[in-house]
Amino acid sequence: MADTRFFHKKEQLTLAEIAQIGEVTLPEGVDETCIFTDVAALDSATENDISWAFIPAVRETLKKTKAGAVIVPEKFLEYVPNGVIALISQDAHRSYGLIASAFYPRVVEGVISPRANIDETAILGEGCCVEAGAYIGKHVVLGNRCHIKANAVIDDGVQMGDDCTVGANATVSHCIAGHKVYIYPGAHIGQDGFGFAMSAKGPVKVPQLGRVIIGDDVEIGSSTTVDRGAMGDTVIGSGSRIDNLVQVAHNVKLGRCCVMVSQVGIAGSCEFGDFVVAGGQVGFAGHLKIGTGAQIAAQSGLMEDVPAGSILMGSPAVPRTEYMRQVIALRQLSKKKK
Amino acid sequence: MADTRFFHKKEQLTLAEIAQIGEVTLPEGVDETCIFTDVAALDSATENDISWAFIPAVRETLKKTKAGAVIVPEKFLEYVPNGVIALISQDAHRSYGLIASAFYPRVVEGVISPRANIDETAILGEGCCVEAGAYIGKHVVLGNRCHIKANAVIDDGVQMGDDCTVGANATVSHCIAGHKVYIYPGAHIGQDGFGFAMSAKGPVKVPQLGRVIIGDDVEIGSSTTVDRGAMGDTVIGSGSRIDNLVQVAHNVKLGRCCVMVSQVGIAGSCEFGDFVVAGGQVGFAGHLKIGTGAQIAAQSGLMEDVPAGSILMGSPAVPRTEYMRQVIALRQLSKKKK
Amino acid sequence: MADTRFFHKKEQLTLAEIAQIGEVTLPEGVDETCIFTDVAALDSATENDISWAFIPAVRETLKKTKAGAVIVPEKFLEYVPNGVIALISQDAHRSYGLIASAFYPRVVEGVISPRANIDETAILGEGCCVEAGAYIGKHVVLGNRCHIKANAVIDDGVQMGDDCTVGANATVSHCIAGHKVYIYPGAHIGQDGFGFAMSAKGPVKVPQLGRVIIGDDVEIGSSTTVDRGAMGDTVIGSGSRIDNLVQVAHNVKLGRCCVMVSQVGIAGSCEFGDFVVAGGQVGFAGHLKIGTGAQIAAQSGLMEDVPAGSILMGSPAVPRTEYMRQVIALRQLSKKKK
Repeated sequence: MADTRFFHKKEQLTLAEIAQIGEVTLPEGVDETCIFTDVAALDSATENDISWAFIPAVRETLKKTKAGAVIVPEKFLEYVPNGVIALISQDAHRSYGLIASAFYPRVVEGVISPRANIDETAILGEGCCVEAGAYIGKHVVLGNRCHIKANAVIDDGVQMGDDCTVGANATVSHCIAGHKVYIYPGAHIGQDGFGFAMSAKGPVKVPQLGRVIIGDDVEIGSSTTVDRGAMGDTVIGSGSRIDNLVQVAHNVKLGRCCVMVSQVGIAGSCEFGDFVVAGGQVGFAGHLKIGTGAQIAAQSGLMEDVPAGSILMGSPAVPRTEYMRQVIALRQLSKKKK
Repeated sequence: MADTRFFHKKEQLTLAEIAQIGEVTLPEGVDETCIFTDVAALDSATENDISWAFIPAVRETLKKTKAGAVIVPEKFLEYVPNGVIALISQDAHRSYGLIASAFYPRVVEGVISPRANIDETAILGEGCCVEAGAYIGKHVVLGNRCHIKANAVIDDGVQMGDDCTVGANATVSHCIAGHKVYIYPGAHIGQDGFGFAMSAKGPVKVPQLGRVIIGDDVEIGSSTTVDRGAMGDTVIGSGSRIDNLVQVAHNVKLGRCCVMVSQVGIAGSCEFGDFVVAGGQVGFAGHLKIGTGAQIAAQSGLMEDVPAGSILMGSPAVPRTEYMRQVIALRQLSKKKK
Repeated sequence: MADTRFFHKKEQLTLAEIAQIGEVTLPEGVDETCIFTDVAALDSATENDISWAFIPAVRETLKKTKAGAVIVPEKFLEYVPNGVIALISQDAHRSYGLIASAFYPRVVEGVISPRANIDETAILGEGCCVEAGAYIGKHVVLGNRCHIKANAVIDDGVQMGDDCTVGANATVSHCIAGHKVYIYPGAHIGQDGFGFAMSAKGPVKVPQLGRVIIGDDVEIGSSTTVDRGAMGDTVIGSGSRIDNLVQVAHNVKLGRCCVMVSQVGIAGSCEFGDFVVAGGQVGFAGHLKIGTGAQIAAQSGLMEDVPAGSILMGSPAVPRTEYMRQVIALRQLSKKKK
C-alpha cells in the first residue's frame, strides 16, 4: 500500500461501488457487498486489493496474482486465476485510474493560513485551502475547493475555476483558467513571451499584451513554462496534459486532450488540433499547424505543417516508416564505407 | 485592447509624441496633434489605434486595416489603405516595440511590503517595490526602481543596478547585475556549477568560487538556469536575451546582444561573440568559441568552434546549405533501398 | 581569490593539513608547517596559493605558474617550475576538490528564522538553519545541520538525513532522502508522475502513489524535476550527480554515482546501473535498462537497452565509432550529389 506518511486512503469500497466508479462489468453472481480496501500491483496485491492488467508484458504476472479482484480487458480473462474476481473493462487503464482515485481522493482542507499573503480584493470560493507563504494578488478570483500550496504566487487579476490546484512555488499571472486545473510545483504560467526587436542598436522589448487561457481538466508540469500571448492569447485546450520542462511559447494554441511529454519545445503561434501527442524533447518551429490526432515521436524536429493523423519521427520529421528506412539506409552505407 | 485586469495603459499619445518615441517619419502635412489611445493588430485595430506591418505575409491584411495609423517599412507604403496614416520606419518591429512600450510602460509602485523578508543590512535605491514573501539577504544592494516580486529570493551580497525586475519565485545569488535586467519568474541565477571529481571512490564536490556577471538590458527566462563560475565568472553580455528553460553552465561568456531561444544548452566555458543567435534546443559542447553573428538553427549540436558569421544546422552542425543537401541525399538513398 | 561578498574562506591551512585532506604526497624534506591561505588558478595564483593541473591543455601555463604549490599527477612533475611545491596526487581533480572544500567549507548557522513556516509536528535535528519564508510541513523529519534556504518548501512527511541543503524556492514532497543531499534552488522533487489514461472520453488521472528515494551524497540541479513513482518508488542512487533541467520520470531507478548532464530526459521506469554518464540533452525512452559504466554522448536518443560499458552516440544511438562513420558517410554522399 502507499506510504501513509504521504497518502491518505479511503478506508474501503464495496464491489458494487467499485464497479460503478470504475465503469467495469462484474462477473455474474458475484457478491457485490464484498469489501476492498486498496489498489496494488499484480505481484504485491493481496485478497483485499484491486489490481489491474492491460499490457501483454504482464500476462504471466497476472496468472499468479493474489489480488482479490483485477481490472482487465475481456481478452485477458483467460489469464485471471481462479478465485480472483475479474472486473472487465473496455479501457482497463481508465478504470484503474477511476478506482485508484476513489481510494485516494483529492482532499482539500478548507483552511486559509494566516501566513498566506492574500490581497483584500481577492475573492476565494468556498472550501479553498491557501497554505503559508502563498501569494494571491489583487482582484484574483478563485472558484470553490481550490488548493494553493505553499509559496505559490497567483498574480493580480488571475481567475481560476473550481477544484484547481496550484503547486508549491508555482507562478501564475495574466491567466484565465477553467475548472480542475492542476499546476504542478514550480510551473510558470503567464510570463512575457520572448518578444523583442533586435538590431545593431540593441534590443527593444515588445510588450506582451495577451493572456494565457486554460480550459478544464488540464495539468501543467513542474518547471514547465507557458508564456502569455504577444497580442491575443496562448490557449491550452481542455483535457490537455503537459509534462515537466515543456516550453509553450506565446500565442501557441493547443486543442483538446493534447499530450506533450517532457522537454517538448513549441515555438510561437503554433496551432494544434485535438489529441495530438508529442514525445519527449520534440521541437516545433514557429507558426506550424499540427492536425488532430498527429503523433510525433520523441526528439523529432518539426519544420512544416503536419496533416491530421500523421505519425512522424526524426529531425526534420518524416513519416515513421520512412524514418526507419533512413536509419537502415545510413547504417548500411556506413558499413559499406568501412 | 489588452485585458484591463492585467494591463495598465497610458490614456493617450499625440501623433507627434508617437513619431518621436517610435523613430518614425510622418507623412507631410499630417495633423501631429491628433490623438491615439492604443496599439492593436491590423485586423482588430480601429481609428484610434496604431498598428504595424513588416512581414510579407500580412500585406493583404494591411490593405484592409481600419487602424488610424500603421507603422511600416517604406516598401509597404503602397499597401497602406487611403485614410490610414503611414508611419515610415527603418525598423518597423523596433518602432512598434518602442510605441507599444510607451502605451504600456513599466510602472513600479514604490511600496515595500511589511511581509517581505529584507535583511537590515540590505540597501535599496529609491522607488523600489518589494512584494510580500520576497527575500533580500545580507548586504544586497539594489538600484532605483527595482521591482522584486512575490517570493523571489535575492541572496546575500547580490548587487543589481537601476530598473531591474526579479520575477516571482526567481532566485539570484552570487551575482552582480547591471541596469534594466529582467529576471523572469522562476529563473535561477548564480547557483553552483556542475563541478565534481568522480572516481571509483565516489564524487568529491569541487567548490564553485566564481560569480555571475550580467550586463545592462538583459532578460533571462523562466526556469532558465545560469550557474556561477567555478573560478572566474559566468558572463551575460549587455543586450542579450535568454529565453525559458535554457542552461548556461559555469564560466560561459555570452557577448553583447546574444539571443538564446528556449531549451538551448550551453556547456561550461563556451565563449560567444556578439549577436550570436541559437534556435530552440541547440546544444553546445564545452569550451567552444562561437564567433560574432553566428546563427545556429534549432536542435543543432555543436562540437567544434564556430567562425563568425556562420549559419549552421544539424547535429553535428554543418553549414545550413550542406545540411539541406544531407537531408535530401538521405531521403533519396532510403527511397532507392525501398 | 573568491569574492568575499559571496564566499567565506578559512584563514589558512598548513601544508601537512593540506596533504592529509587532499590525499597528496609531499616532496621529501619540504617544510610541512608552511602556510597556505587559498586556492587559485595557475595563472593568477601567488606564493600563498594552492593551484592544480591535470589536463594536457594547461601544461604551458603550469610551467609559468607562481603558485606556492600545485596539485599534479606524477607525470606532470617535469612541468612544475622550480620553487613551486609539487603535491603529487593519483587523482588531482579529486585532490583539488577536497582541498578547495577545506578552504571553503559548508557552514550552517544554526538559526531558525521566526519568519519560516514550520509545522509544530516537524522534527529538526541539531544545528539546522531554516531561512525566512521556508515551509516545513507536518511530520517532516530533518537530520542535523540541514540548511533549508529561503522560500524552499518541504511538504508533509518528508524525511532527510544529516547535512542536507535545500536551495531557495526548491520543492520536496513524498521523499525519503539520505545524508549530504544537496537540492539546488528551484529543483522540484516528488510531484506526481505523468500518469493518466487518455481516451476519446478525455483523460482520467492515475494517482501516483509512490515516493522518491534519494541515497547519500546526491546533488540535484536547478529546475530539475524528479517525479515520484506511480506505484513503487523513483530511486536516485548514492553519489549520483544530476545537473540542471533534467527530467527524471516516475519509477526511474538510477544506480550509484550516475552523472546526468543538463537537459537529459529519462522516461518512466528506466533502470540504470552504477557510474552511467549521459551527456547534455540525451533522451531515454521508457522502460530501458542501462548497464553499469555506460557512456552516452550528448543529444543521443536511446530506444533500446544498453549493455554495461557501452559508449554510444546519435539518435537512435549506436556505438560511438559507428556514429562517426555514419556522419562521414553522409557527408560524402551529400557531396557526391552536389
